[in-house]
Amino acid sequence: MELLSSNRCFDGEHRRYRHRSQVLDCEMIFAVYLPPQARKQPVPVLYWLSGLTCTDENFMQKAGAQKRAAELGMAIVCPDTSPRGVDLPGEDDSYDFGSGAGFYVNATQQPWARHYRMYDYVVSELPALVEAELPVSDQRSVSGHSMGGHGALIAALKNPGRYKSVSAFAPICHPTACPWGQKAFLGYLGDDQETWAEYDATLLIPEARERLPLLIDQGTADQFLEEQLHPESLAEACETAHHHVTLRMHSGYDHSYFFIASFIDEHLDHHAKALGLR
Amino acid sequence: MELLSSNRCFDGEHRRYRHRSQVLDCEMIFAVYLPPQARKQPVPVLYWLSGLTCTDENFMQKAGAQKRAAELGMAIVCPDTSPRGVDLPGEDDSYDFGSGAGFYVNATQQPWARHYRMYDYVVSELPALVEAELPVSDQRSVSGHSMGGHGALIAALKNPGRYKSVSAFAPICHPTACPWGQKAFLGYLGDDQETWAEYDATLLIPEARERLPLLIDQGTADQFLEEQLHPESLAEACETAHHHVTLRMHSGYDHSYFFIASFIDEHLDHHAKALGLR
Repeated sequence: MELLSSNRCFDGEHRRYRHRSQVLDCEMIFAVYLPPQARKQPVPVLYWLSGLTCTDENFMQKAGAQKRAAELGMAIVCPDTSPRGVDLPGEDDSYDFGSGAGFYVNATQQPWARHYRMYDYVVSELPALVEAELPVSDQRSVSGHSMGGHGALIAALKNPGRYKSVSAFAPICHPTACPWGQKAFLGYLGDDQETWAEYDATLLIPEARERLPLLIDQGTADQFLEEQLHPESLAEACETAHHHVTLRMHSGYDHSYFFIASFIDEHLDHHAKALGLR
Repeated sequence: MELLSSNRCFDGEHRRYRHRSQVLDCEMIFAVYLPPQARKQPVPVLYWLSGLTCTDENFMQKAGAQKRAAELGMAIVCPDTSPRGVDLPGEDDSYDFGSGAGFYVNATQQPWARHYRMYDYVVSELPALVEAELPVSDQRSVSGHSMGGHGALIAALKNPGRYKSVSAFAPICHPTACPWGQKAFLGYLGDDQETWAEYDATLLIPEARERLPLLIDQGTADQFLEEQLHPESLAEACETAHHHVTLRMHSGYDHSYFFIASFIDEHLDHHAKALGLR
């Protein structure tokens, strides 16, 4: 890992690293916030998965999460949202497919299958790397926004025991039933709908082997709510399966980081409790 | 004023407006955060002046100030850092002069004198506009970062009674003695050093008619500290003039918004006290 930059922040450190990803077969950049407690011993860690068009930087610069993370003694790791610099045809043609839009799946279709394996990257490779190289422990939680909320939900639902808690802001709850998800899954996974179902939180709920409660915040003024996000589908699936979900609808909030910033402390507190930090 | 966007944030509103500035003879954009208390009555207001290359967006997206502002009932207004779209020769040639670098002075030199009058804009025209059009009161404080810290200091020092309090992060304390300030003042004000002195906080301190205490935060790992910022000169001038200054040197912090975010709540509390909010 190559340290690209370091900024003191709330007596901890915001750092950016570059490393060679075996899974993605390219160089990747990620960011980590290490709270002051990490100077003494490894600390529990929240993995934050960002939304379409984002890099490792958006959450770290805009969510205002470091203050509470420093108080709690929680690290935060922010991966990028797709492989970078792999030079595939059409990779940069749209904001919702290709670069910046890896959708946290393992692609099976060409030309994407060689590099676009963000599911394995965020669930396995990156945690193993940071746990080996940085003072973070294997006590993990996961959260994210929009496409990254989808990523957080499927990462938790598909990996019993791997995370202590999960939450999401305005997640794509039912990607097989919305334009963003359908475009991405068709491109990365082909037209076999059974494969699609393996990456759809709403469809994973009935089979979930671990009943990790879901915390979801959603703004009512979110411009993507009706067409893309479908939290009601996930809530229905949870009700049917008796899977605990807390879906909070926040009047007047939109899809932006101003919404995330308004409630991120409550999510950190939720994760801190599960991680034994309070 | 034309409302460009509005985002719910901590139960208040982040808004961006466009308006025609008479002083600058161009269209300008500014941002305002209105805390929830502003729905009931006009609230005191902090004017935040940003640094080189910034627009109205940097502080609002990166400082994490809205949470405490909402708790305190304080509005925050963020102007842009220069006239925009005025199409002057050389305006975009460098990051430290012209667009994004108005330096909060009234230019006297051509071709800048017609538009580059950021001092009058931020001290007079913009407050008059927002006090007339938005639920903010004439109880004003002022703060800023780097070039904007310089702007905040001179705005307060030159206008007794206009602000209840002043603070700055990593301000350019003595612009007549540093490369950034010398380049800007020569370009905007010409070579008459007496004119320069009217916009230099360190040189204004001996003549200050109002003894508003100064709160200044400075990181020791700031890459611009030695060459550009000179807080020690301002501190010396304050000591000589018996002008109260609190200069806090923060070990390991740099010039970034990660530094500002780490201490912004303390600045808001400082201003809140002066504004009668706590």
